[in-house]
Amino acid sequence: MHAADPALVRLRIALAYDGGDFSGFARQPDRRTVQGVLEAALARLSGAAVTTVGAGRTDAGVHADLQVVHADVPAGSRIVADLDRARGALDAICGPALTIWEVQHAPASFDARFSAIRRSYRYRICDDDPLPPLWRHHTWHVKTPRLDVSAMQAGGQALKGEHDFSSFCRRRDDQHLTRRVDAIAVSRRATNLVIVEVSAKAFCHQMVRSITGCLYTVGRGRRSPEWVADVLAAKDRQAVGQVAPPHGLTLIGVSYPG
Amino acid sequence: MHAADPALVRLRIALAYDGGDFSGFARQPDRRTVQGVLEAALARLSGAAVTTVGAGRTDAGVHADLQVVHADVPAGSRIVADLDRARGALDAICGPALTIWEVQHAPASFDARFSAIRRSYRYRICDDDPLPPLWRHHTWHVKTPRLDVSAMQAGGQALKGEHDFSSFCRRRDDQHLTRRVDAIAVSRRATNLVIVEVSAKAFCHQMVRSITGCLYTVGRGRRSPEWVADVLAAKDRQAVGQVAPPHGLTLIGVSYPG
Repeated sequence: MHAADPALVRLRIALAYDGGDFSGFARQPDRRTVQGVLEAALARLSGAAVTTVGAGRTDAGVHADLQVVHADVPAGSRIVADLDRARGALDAICGPALTIWEVQHAPASFDARFSAIRRSYRYRICDDDPLPPLWRHHTWHVKTPRLDVSAMQAGGQALKGEHDFSSFCRRRDDQHLTRRVDAIAVSRRATNLVIVEVSAKAFCHQMVRSITGCLYTVGRGRRSPEWVADVLAAKDRQAVGQVAPPHGLTLIGVSYPG
Repeated sequence: MHAADPALVRLRIALAYDGGDFSGFARQPDRRTVQGVLEAALARLSGAAVTTVGAGRTDAGVHADLQVVHADVPAGSRIVADLDRARGALDAICGPALTIWEVQHAPASFDARFSAIRRSYRYRICDDDPLPPLWRHHTWHVKTPRLDVSAMQAGGQALKGEHDFSSFCRRRDDQHLTRRVDAIAVSRRATNLVIVEVSAKAFCHQMVRSITGCLYTVGRGRRSPEWVADVLAAKDRQAVGQVAPPHGLTLIGVSYPG
């Protein structure tokens, strides 16, 4: 079954989720995952088994403000007849931790994963004590003295452009660990809140969390900004030291051509 | 035991909490409440039974960004010896849903409840579909067409000043339902977010939620802004109609003289 089958229609679905409610994006037997919940809802509405493909396979605990998936559903199903209504129905079935922003028709050539030209992530760090209670679900609380945001921003610039990101990748089964970072920015948004934002065409596994952990080591003064280039050059996962925890990370957008 | 006892020291404690984790502020047998958790932590640190008095007795589900309580603890206890350390210890014991901002000495004349000259509350309403998943803990989701914020703001002005708020009070065992509203403001903070802020020296039970419910009825076009004055004049709880749910409400501040 693929989208070239005239009996199927390809849909593009934009969604958000609270990562704390799921064992990650990717379907797993006997686990509540984003893909699992979404596919079950699509199956219920379309009357057929439906497989989804996501732009970003976020880990357990990682949130999304804007994730994109594609799915092929039977052309005759009621889900296709009224996409607005289908959005509302999907949203209701998926529950409050998984929000459906939009359901659209897409050409058969659209692939949520491979057509994407940019993914953007945001990492939230609270560097003051105590942590506001409603931040605990989506913010890493570090109890060091205030982070040096200028040093973190300076260090991060070494990662811009195309590099072998072996040092910043957990899973080694990916053969190609060369990635191109388009933008990386560290800024203080409040007296107790530091934001790390990273955009790239694609990321390897735990790359943003590894980058954030590395910049945190710089920000607390344990290493100089120049050390980030050394970590990159080492091409060795041990070099990065700390990996930031998942709950501070959010996928904030995915871009496609046109 | 009161603060005039030289063996006791009065403390002023500033705190925040996620109301979703508690059965309200006020101590209740066999329920997890803010006051119960805080008093147990104070007893553990001071080695004595401790009673707290809060500025606002928030209902189950209502949050606080800044709540203030006072408590009397033995002058010789370690909690008094180092207040900074005591803050950290209290914060750790109370868990991530209850945050201790500050612990200070206070004069025996300080009363968190009766010395307060102003309490401020904020109510969050999302008036677009769907609700962002991380908002579900602290935002009321209404599925009407966009609210008319100008009409809500206009209607709210009828409540400014001193009035009998019987129509906006749930519990009728308060003998005196006259309250003075210092400020009331309705504004749109995002395309899908309306904020209602109300300040008063004191509030009666469910007053902000009742005001918000009333303004919501205006905002969705069911009633004119002038109707708010009619509700007030009725001095009848039935007149208000809808009461907004607790989880959209946050106590955002308490002011004292000086």
